[in-house]
Amino acid sequence: MSGRRADPGVPPSTGDGEGGDALPWVHSGNMGLLVDQYQFTMLRAYHAEGMLGQAVFSLFVRRLPPERNYLLACGLDTVLGVLEQLHFPDDALAHLASVEGFDESFLGWLSELRFRGDVWAVPEGTPVFANEPILEVRASLPEAQVVETLVMNQIHLQTVLASKASRVKAAAGERGVVDFGLRRMHGTDAGLKSARAFHIAGVDATSNVLAGRVYGVPVTGTMAHSYVQAHEGEMEAFRAFMRVFPETVLLVDTYDTLEGVRTVVRLARELGDDFRVRGVRLDSGDLDALARASREILDAAGLEDLRILASGGLDEWSIRELVRAGAPIDGFGVGTGMGVAADAPSLDIAYKLTEYEGEGRLKLSPEKPILPGRKQIFRVEEEERAVRDVLAGEGEHHRGRPLLRQVMSAGERTESGREGLDVARDRAAEELSRLPEPLLELESADSAFPVEVSPELRERQRRAADRAAEGRAG
Amino acid sequence: MSGRRADPGVPPSTGDGEGGDALPWVHSGNMGLLVDQYQFTMLRAYHAEGMLGQAVFSLFVRRLPPERNYLLACGLDTVLGVLEQLHFPDDALAHLASVEGFDESFLGWLSELRFRGDVWAVPEGTPVFANEPILEVRASLPEAQVVETLVMNQIHLQTVLASKASRVKAAAGERGVVDFGLRRMHGTDAGLKSARAFHIAGVDATSNVLAGRVYGVPVTGTMAHSYVQAHEGEMEAFRAFMRVFPETVLLVDTYDTLEGVRTVVRLARELGDDFRVRGVRLDSGDLDALARASREILDAAGLEDLRILASGGLDEWSIRELVRAGAPIDGFGVGTGMGVAADAPSLDIAYKLTEYEGEGRLKLSPEKPILPGRKQIFRVEEEERAVRDVLAGEGEHHRGRPLLRQVMSAGERTESGREGLDVARDRAAEELSRLPEPLLELESADSAFPVEVSPELRERQRRAADRAAEGRAG
Repeated sequence: MSGRRADPGVPPSTGDGEGGDALPWVHSGNMGLLVDQYQFTMLRAYHAEGMLGQAVFSLFVRRLPPERNYLLACGLDTVLGVLEQLHFPDDALAHLASVEGFDESFLGWLSELRFRGDVWAVPEGTPVFANEPILEVRASLPEAQVVETLVMNQIHLQTVLASKASRVKAAAGERGVVDFGLRRMHGTDAGLKSARAFHIAGVDATSNVLAGRVYGVPVTGTMAHSYVQAHEGEMEAFRAFMRVFPETVLLVDTYDTLEGVRTVVRLARELGDDFRVRGVRLDSGDLDALARASREILDAAGLEDLRILASGGLDEWSIRELVRAGAPIDGFGVGTGMGVAADAPSLDIAYKLTEYEGEGRLKLSPEKPILPGRKQIFRVEEEERAVRDVLAGEGEHHRGRPLLRQVMSAGERTESGREGLDVARDRAAEELSRLPEPLLELESADSAFPVEVSPELRERQRRAADRAAEGRAG
Repeated sequence: MSGRRADPGVPPSTGDGEGGDALPWVHSGNMGLLVDQYQFTMLRAYHAEGMLGQAVFSLFVRRLPPERNYLLACGLDTVLGVLEQLHFPDDALAHLASVEGFDESFLGWLSELRFRGDVWAVPEGTPVFANEPILEVRASLPEAQVVETLVMNQIHLQTVLASKASRVKAAAGERGVVDFGLRRMHGTDAGLKSARAFHIAGVDATSNVLAGRVYGVPVTGTMAHSYVQAHEGEMEAFRAFMRVFPETVLLVDTYDTLEGVRTVVRLARELGDDFRVRGVRLDSGDLDALARASREILDAAGLEDLRILASGGLDEWSIRELVRAGAPIDGFGVGTGMGVAADAPSLDIAYKLTEYEGEGRLKLSPEKPILPGRKQIFRVEEEERAVRDVLAGEGEHHRGRPLLRQVMSAGERTESGREGLDVARDRAAEELSRLPEPLLELESADSAFPVEVSPELRERQRRAADRAAEGRAG
């Protein structure tokens, strides 16, 4: 993240690859190869043809999943970092030399290739809708093409996760939400990037230590069942843990949840003023009933300040049910359901050429329409609530707030491309509060948020379609 | 992968972190922090208590998703690499020093910590079922505990993806399957590791260039719609591409699929013997109807050898439908559905303490039973078909093939821990062919594969439960 902590993105020059078999990771030194091969074959052809003109590519989601009333745009900062650092080191070139058709002239040119284009984007934490450009890349055709996979991969991941997490946070209301999902997220990169997506979406903390190191997000964690199991008894385990971490949260469901709570009460009596435990965590069973019973036991013992945290298979729906039922739960640990966005783990995201050498371009594949050219989104608000968006061509003027702004110029971040994580987090909270209320419900809204295409953009689309029809013949 | 190519897992000592804002990635130098914080707090407590005895942790899936009749175990080689390289460099220790309770004595001890334990595991590519240990870690309690998150994260990811991909491959039968999913997978690590999971599961090739570099899997790729769009016409685009890649596959659906096929025919006539294109790809519309019509057009032009490839929103179900309908499609490009395992993106995977200092351990949380101690799985086969598994304690003798074998001894891989990717791929094909046929259907099998718990293991569980009940009181 820009302007936060120094991060461990610089791997040590020794330490990797030692100790036996190699253990591969993706990093800035090899990410240039983390692309679909067709990008290199196309680049090779563009190089041969001298097709180095200016292109515009638009990143957008064709349709929202039925489970989402909005998407929370996320991942831009990572993408800008990728674009800044994109290069093809000797190692990558040596590998490509083994692919048929990739000759020395091409590889020499590729070795010099850097991203020197412009990027326009909606800021992170902005709710977006179908067909709205989350990001526009304006660069030479090869530059804009070769970044396709990484740009999509990172915006997709972080937008999927932020969109899910904002629902979980909405369901929890004032109660805290802690991310416990690292172990079942899809790999280590998702494990790391999820932390920034979740933070932007309003999640309060994570269990992920590296995320704290890299992004400065709050990290929390106490004990697993194995800690209790490894000791001869639960009381002994609690006592030992409290000696090191007196203000901890005790996990009480290893054997019998309410017995565990009573053990906590016994410890409180035993320790008197030295008892500084902050809470108990329930991780299984009927969380509503157990939370109520635990609350009663704790209150009866004068432990009204002890918080009750709940975890175990939670998602936005089960959290809402607990909240609506009035279960006395102060915070939720949410794992897998949020960590893989189980109900909508992917988006129909596309990165499409919309302009080449100043001419709007599209394709005519059924059900996959493209709006041509450079664009702007205008968000029209009435009484501080968004009422519709207008999707227009660049240069058009409309009522409403323009959402796309320039975040990179000639390969360098603009001021807008350097915002901190908390700015995006604050924006998400603010922008979400301005959405129409039905969109903020967990249920599918009866009608999608209206996104109008401006008459001028429609006309551009018609003209581009005509040209495409000629291209078909041609 | 062991014994294959040198890989770029060793990041360059320069190149990262340059060029403006830092771009963090997870790699061997910082992965020690990619853990849930509770592991460090527990370690801190174990260190204080001197609880450094031998522990056994078992990694297993509690329940299979209803969409899966088996899981294909995958990810072991990556996990062994993680265990070999696990360490906490100064940078990590400096960060942990900022966490309350992590004092110098603990951090000094942590700086020396390496994984020196034993690992038993089912080999990659083995079908496994609910409650069967995919992996057992036998090590000092802190060593076995601190690797929990990374071990789970990698086995989970690769088992999720391999299990999904083996269904896709089964549906495709003799037809080829190419992985196109990188852009919508969850982050870069999933993008890389998916390639080995898919290769083990039988997928024929990937679009992912880095996967070819790292794992030596076949890589393929030709052109995107943007290539066609960027040219004035489809014919011109095809002609230009063929000049560089004469034996390519042409993407024909940018404007009108059958017109695109006719354009290919015109090019074939024009070029005569110089026409060496291998196939066409359909990426939208009614793939069955378009494939038939394309086949007719191509055959009528004497282009019987030209292959027809199909892609666009495919999964095992739509592929099976196309295959059963007899659509003349020679290969499938499969993206998102396989890349995020959309129907079952997570598993109820657990990593649980089952033994400490020689005593079986368990917890009593409802619906989350643990079988205590070290185990072995015996696969009983009749006429080369698996009929049941027996889950037993270590040292028991039963009919059937033992599946768990030692892959790491005192922190070093055994011979079994060093197998190549193709060995696992061959195993998967062989082992899957030995499963009962209903399990190989896409539909949920009427009855799950029988996994019996041996009477001796049941008895051990009973005894451990009694001890746990005492622990509850204790």
